[in-house]
Amino acid sequence: MISWKNLDTLASFQELAKKDKVCLKDVMSGEAGAKRVKAYQMPMAEGMTYCYAAKAVDENVLDGLKKLADEAQLLEKYAALYNGEVINTGEKRLVLHQLTRGQLGDAVIKDGVNKRDFYLAQQKKIEEFANDVHSGKITNGAGEKFTTVVQIGIGGSDLGPRAIYLALENWAKQTGNFNMEAKFISNVDPDDAAAVLAGIDVAHSLFVLVSKSGTTLETLTNESFVKDALKNAGLDASKHMVAVTSETSPLATSSDYLRAFFMDDYIGGRFSSTSAVGGAILSLAYTPEVFARFLEGAAAEDKLAANADLKKNPALLDALIGVYERNVLGFPATALLPYSQALSRFPAHLQQADMESNGKSVNRFGEPVNYPTGPVLFGEPGTNGQHSFYQLLHQGTDIVPLQFIGFKESQLGVDVNIQGSTSQKKLCANVVAQIMAFACGKDNEDNNKKFAGNRPSSIIIGEKLTPETMGALLSHYENKIMFQGFLWNVNSFDQEGVQLGKVLAKKVLAHETDGALKEFSDMFEI
Amino acid sequence: MISWKNLDTLASFQELAKKDKVCLKDVMSGEAGAKRVKAYQMPMAEGMTYCYAAKAVDENVLDGLKKLADEAQLLEKYAALYNGEVINTGEKRLVLHQLTRGQLGDAVIKDGVNKRDFYLAQQKKIEEFANDVHSGKITNGAGEKFTTVVQIGIGGSDLGPRAIYLALENWAKQTGNFNMEAKFISNVDPDDAAAVLAGIDVAHSLFVLVSKSGTTLETLTNESFVKDALKNAGLDASKHMVAVTSETSPLATSSDYLRAFFMDDYIGGRFSSTSAVGGAILSLAYTPEVFARFLEGAAAEDKLAANADLKKNPALLDALIGVYERNVLGFPATALLPYSQALSRFPAHLQQADMESNGKSVNRFGEPVNYPTGPVLFGEPGTNGQHSFYQLLHQGTDIVPLQFIGFKESQLGVDVNIQGSTSQKKLCANVVAQIMAFACGKDNEDNNKKFAGNRPSSIIIGEKLTPETMGALLSHYENKIMFQGFLWNVNSFDQEGVQLGKVLAKKVLAHETDGALKEFSDMFEI
Repeated sequence: MISWKNLDTLASFQELAKKDKVCLKDVMSGEAGAKRVKAYQMPMAEGMTYCYAAKAVDENVLDGLKKLADEAQLLEKYAALYNGEVINTGEKRLVLHQLTRGQLGDAVIKDGVNKRDFYLAQQKKIEEFANDVHSGKITNGAGEKFTTVVQIGIGGSDLGPRAIYLALENWAKQTGNFNMEAKFISNVDPDDAAAVLAGIDVAHSLFVLVSKSGTTLETLTNESFVKDALKNAGLDASKHMVAVTSETSPLATSSDYLRAFFMDDYIGGRFSSTSAVGGAILSLAYTPEVFARFLEGAAAEDKLAANADLKKNPALLDALIGVYERNVLGFPATALLPYSQALSRFPAHLQQADMESNGKSVNRFGEPVNYPTGPVLFGEPGTNGQHSFYQLLHQGTDIVPLQFIGFKESQLGVDVNIQGSTSQKKLCANVVAQIMAFACGKDNEDNNKKFAGNRPSSIIIGEKLTPETMGALLSHYENKIMFQGFLWNVNSFDQEGVQLGKVLAKKVLAHETDGALKEFSDMFEI
Repeated sequence: MISWKNLDTLASFQELAKKDKVCLKDVMSGEAGAKRVKAYQMPMAEGMTYCYAAKAVDENVLDGLKKLADEAQLLEKYAALYNGEVINTGEKRLVLHQLTRGQLGDAVIKDGVNKRDFYLAQQKKIEEFANDVHSGKITNGAGEKFTTVVQIGIGGSDLGPRAIYLALENWAKQTGNFNMEAKFISNVDPDDAAAVLAGIDVAHSLFVLVSKSGTTLETLTNESFVKDALKNAGLDASKHMVAVTSETSPLATSSDYLRAFFMDDYIGGRFSSTSAVGGAILSLAYTPEVFARFLEGAAAEDKLAANADLKKNPALLDALIGVYERNVLGFPATALLPYSQALSRFPAHLQQADMESNGKSVNRFGEPVNYPTGPVLFGEPGTNGQHSFYQLLHQGTDIVPLQFIGFKESQLGVDVNIQGSTSQKKLCANVVAQIMAFACGKDNEDNNKKFAGNRPSSIIIGEKLTPETMGALLSHYENKIMFQGFLWNVNSFDQEGVQLGKVLAKKVLAHETDGALKEFSDMFEI
């Protein structure tokens, strides 16, 4: 029997808070530090490793985290979720994004439909469509092949697919899996759509309109932009557009689209990269096989997240350590630092996934909670970040826990040897050096040159960024967010905080304003 | 006589901390709210407006901020800086980035050189070179015009120029000021350089190598990458490269470069966008006139920052409010939210400028400070951010002060009218709506749908994003950072916190490691 309780009502949390704190500087020094690195790591899917040696935990704290995981019933809640219980209680919805990539538990039947079959059917439809586009069976009006695919979507329909597209672009080009260049139109700022349209050959472009409800204002506005551009070029828009939407949306049956691929209410936007939302553009830009491999990686990592052994469950431990850092150690932010240029927009995606899921002040029963929930998350790729905000991370007054990602090999394999090492080795040497600099610091007579250390980090290490490892990475963080939401007892799957702005924006556009709102509107001459 | 004192030793700070707090929700409601918006705004340069009505201040708090500005001698310190005193005390250097765009005070003579003349001479050299490239007087070896310019640099040599290039790209194309496409290579990740090089026509590309010292490892490594690519294409690298460096660097007199343009030790990397570091690439990509207009905007805003009237000095007030939020109200992070897709990378640039400058724990005498200094800064363009992390901003447990930027007009002027309004109006309506939603919130019987409000924001409103307004925006934030550094009594112009990582990375590459560092190195097979 699952019970949903606030974090601060759990005996194990109270106990955890009282445990002796770990001095990272001490435990990471000397030969003991080397042993610790060996001991505090575990396999992830696809040959990756999660290492938490540079986090402020020891056996005592880990024991406390294990008790917390048990008392909070984290694995039972995960099982309830993948077995199809109504976990998104506010909106009374199932939460099924894991089901888009594998069947972890019972068959989930909703309204007479086996949902796994439903998601597989959409993948199959996308696969056939993408193959037909690539082979030239489906062409533009002039019988010519499409060369470019443009996603029109915002938030979850943009950030995840964009981050994953960028993550695999070099890899796909290198391995012969690249079919169409992808572009993205998201912002309601007209310069976004206008600039993208000016930079492509619309006659050979296929547009993927992504809106679950079919009513997202930004997306519909940008669709009009695109339709105008197609019309101005003398083209039939309906031969250039597909929709990704829910079966009940007005887009689902419209003749304005070559095809409609479906998602449903059980896939939140920010968790939709493995659904048709990511599937259409990634299958078109690359190949359906690449998308399938990406799903395999995610599915493998989903499976690990169900492991009852905390020392064999990276997402679970990562989540618990994050909550320990937030609610016991009191750190208000966290940084995601991939040492891979290909992951340049992965932090922006996780910023959404994390902050929109767990940036909540009430628990799942609508009662205010008395503890901090989701932290601010930000990040940029290393080594770039080292020449930017790392100064604050090393010597600022606040401690920001860090999450590194690194790969042994580059994607393209093109490299130069300077001063006795390749760029890839330099990249790896930098992330390794940073972990230790943050953990152990360095004393100096000059306080300005002193590094206090004791700044915790974890790292995920992989061989190479591939579709599989990308899928596993995505799943890891999605599951981490899910477990943290369970710990904070918030509903991670709604986003009521985005509503008020929409309502007020409509009022402004309808000129139904007074007071300060009218004054601001006047300043913008709306 | 200037005296440098810690923030918490100032009587005016103690007084400020005791003042009654403003309930934003109350003061922004009703007709009083409208009056407040009118009263709490001031002109910036280039026709822009800074409005702080939605910040948690009133006349009482503003009076306290004024006293704090006076006691901390902020304007005297700014004057000392632009008159050429050694403000970067740690490195014993002048701080002269404002001098690259105008002469605010006394002539600054250093080692017999009038520094304003020096910076102007570099601009002139760049102007002549760019004009010769554009006219075809300077060409590649085959006598053909260069079409692409690629900046090789990291940190301050990358983020600012890149953000400004992106900010003006649409505008330049629209107004006939676009000459060459610009690309950027920054990361030591070999995939960064390899991907950029694979995407350009190297035979018609000019490379701008930017390194003040001429020893930045990432940059020199990427230079080799580029030279290899040029050699492999049968080209003479020295006909394709210019350097931006200091006169004393090994690059300054090397025959490997077509030209060398100079910066000096008085321009910090993160403040170098208005020096030759930004000048070369922006003059080449656009025109020298565009760069000159950008400098004019910055110079005009620099002048405003010297205004003794707090209500006429946007950077000063913005800085004071930020410190009030950080040190009195206790907010640990701040978000920068430009409602302009063209400013997509401006938050990343300011993240560096701000966090690298003021993420310090010791004062300018090397003594630890007892109060929080620079906050975490992050941001993405609106409306995209609304569909991402705004959930946490509205309903999360921490309050994050916000800095909005908006423009009445788009850059390209291409728009569509949907549901009775253009995209640009929708964009403006959204930012206006957000300010009010954050400030006043909205009650609801369902706590999950309740918005607590009292979340402070300021906004900068401009007509259109142009070279001049971009320059003014950049100056505004640079000067804000400077004033905040004065308040926290830190040296905003060094970055000792980046050193330890470099030292350890070298050890890793030299295999001079033991303990945990060796263990991590082994995991990466270095």
